[in-house]
Amino acid sequence: MSKRIGKQTVSLPHRPGILSFASIAGQKEKEGPYGDKFDCIIPDELNGEQSFEAAERAMLELAITLCAQKARRTPQDVQLLLSGDLLNQIISAGFAARNLGIPFYGLYGACSTMSESLSLGSMIADGGFADVLICATCSHFCTAERQYRAPLELGNQRPPTAQWTVTGAGAVMVGCGPSAANARAVLTHTTCGRVIDLGITDQNNMGAAMAPAAADTIAAHLQDTDRRFEDYDLVVTGDLGHLGRDLLIELLRKKRITVQEDRLFDCGCEIFSARQDAHSGGSGCGCAASMLCAHILPEIASGHLKRVLFMATGALLSPTTTMQGESVPGVAHAVVIEHKEEKDDA
Amino acid sequence: MSKRIGKQTVSLPHRPGILSFASIAGQKEKEGPYGDKFDCIIPDELNGEQSFEAAERAMLELAITLCAQKARRTPQDVQLLLSGDLLNQIISAGFAARNLGIPFYGLYGACSTMSESLSLGSMIADGGFADVLICATCSHFCTAERQYRAPLELGNQRPPTAQWTVTGAGAVMVGCGPSAANARAVLTHTTCGRVIDLGITDQNNMGAAMAPAAADTIAAHLQDTDRRFEDYDLVVTGDLGHLGRDLLIELLRKKRITVQEDRLFDCGCEIFSARQDAHSGGSGCGCAASMLCAHILPEIASGHLKRVLFMATGALLSPTTTMQGESVPGVAHAVVIEHKEEKDDA
Repeated sequence: MSKRIGKQTVSLPHRPGILSFASIAGQKEKEGPYGDKFDCIIPDELNGEQSFEAAERAMLELAITLCAQKARRTPQDVQLLLSGDLLNQIISAGFAARNLGIPFYGLYGACSTMSESLSLGSMIADGGFADVLICATCSHFCTAERQYRAPLELGNQRPPTAQWTVTGAGAVMVGCGPSAANARAVLTHTTCGRVIDLGITDQNNMGAAMAPAAADTIAAHLQDTDRRFEDYDLVVTGDLGHLGRDLLIELLRKKRITVQEDRLFDCGCEIFSARQDAHSGGSGCGCAASMLCAHILPEIASGHLKRVLFMATGALLSPTTTMQGESVPGVAHAVVIEHKEEKDDA
Repeated sequence: MSKRIGKQTVSLPHRPGILSFASIAGQKEKEGPYGDKFDCIIPDELNGEQSFEAAERAMLELAITLCAQKARRTPQDVQLLLSGDLLNQIISAGFAARNLGIPFYGLYGACSTMSESLSLGSMIADGGFADVLICATCSHFCTAERQYRAPLELGNQRPPTAQWTVTGAGAVMVGCGPSAANARAVLTHTTCGRVIDLGITDQNNMGAAMAPAAADTIAAHLQDTDRRFEDYDLVVTGDLGHLGRDLLIELLRKKRITVQEDRLFDCGCEIFSARQDAHSGGSGCGCAASMLCAHILPEIASGHLKRVLFMATGALLSPTTTMQGESVPGVAHAVVIEHKEEKDDA
């Protein structure tokens, strides 16, 4: 009966399908290389609301509603919402769940939330506990900077290792059974990450804090599944940024894993162009979430990518513990998403 | 294949077993009516650490380690940890997961975390995705007051509606298949709650904020399962406190649900005695968690209780949104725990 393979990975024998997905992004993200791929761009940082927090929440709600619409459903048809965000008490997810009325499991995995929600959601769907559920997350530059570092009004200078929190949201509808028959992207495995801490204490260097967790989860996944890095068309990491991506490659080499660098796609490195002054790259839950829904999933659904390891990475940064002298641990969860041919439907 | 019954409830056909459980509490909890039932009492609020946050984290780690030990296992034998807590970025759970090395899904459900983790954990075990996992949570009076209200050093007066955050932790090991053969308590159903908000804005009245969510989840559960309140020996709520419990009874009556008041056991009402000056009662993730592990689960395992609906309740209180004029939504998740006779093992 056990679907476990190895220490951290499970297989999903019913191959839950991805029924629809939606992405929202901000103006800066619109100006990046993937700007024309997002479903919707919010007009400005306030998004028609009175506060940045309300703007973020509205963005997440829109992503979820749009995701349901694209599958020709309403939020009322969705049986479960698995969501979380970067803000204290996950207020974006909690208030979105209140407004939408969908039964709700709140998650906190920092920037790993998109793959954490897909990891849990894929097991729930595969196990027959939900026919239709949505996994979603979001982040907002202005709310994250205020909470984790300093209010924007201070105009603090940012070091080269700093990343730019993406203003964006992504929502993915997962289903199993007959409702998922037409899905062109399916979930086949998931690997739950461990919390790894190599002692980074600089809250402006999240890439370095997350890279060890990313390396640990990739290594566990490849060992559990007896696969190699090259068995994936793409290994997608969340928001390591330029520095974190380099560190990940170095850490994987130390683990004697051969990395095809052209197949390692970090959403944080890709979402902004070099001239956008985003330093080490994009970050935030919304980075991996919006890039997954705007770029990666369409490529899988169309068959351009056949098999992808999607792994959002989270730095469990806490202003409180940082002030208490603690370092910043990281965590990364992975899901395998494969293209499904129409002929596979039978 | 679907295990869904009704809109919010799923059945767990493999009846995952509760393999072991452990509870930790503080000095004030020791002086309460259930003081001699906790597995371990921490010596003082600092618990041998340098900060209250570190004290809380150590308590959670101890609960998890002790829970594993009671099942004659080590933390390394545990395949998954589902945990969260009240603190920003769930630092207690995250750092405990780092130290223990168990693959970790981080949750945020405020004080509903114990039943949220059991709800997700029971589906994961029932679905064959884990043979042995631990669901755990904790809270600490000093860390919660500082983060959510005011530092204790201010000596603020507390209104009669205020509750006292329990210093405590609980950990439950859930398993399925052969490893769970000897379990005397099994999980049979779980109901995922919706986020409900009736407009409470007073951050010193969490019972009123949580009661509507508790009523909503109980009503959904009874409707989904076609059961009545009296089909349960006990309906255990997390930490509504005296005021919240009264409101829950009123709200259930409005929904035309007959409540046997002697079967409604609120951990927040029970953990402290009237002379302990805890105002409306205990609260915090650790309240339901420690009472479940110290009192409820032993009663089920021994057969004194045959069938219990366990539902921790969470107020999604955020200092940020409260200052922005938002009200406090609540959420409650439920699991059905039944006694299993030895003869049922065959």
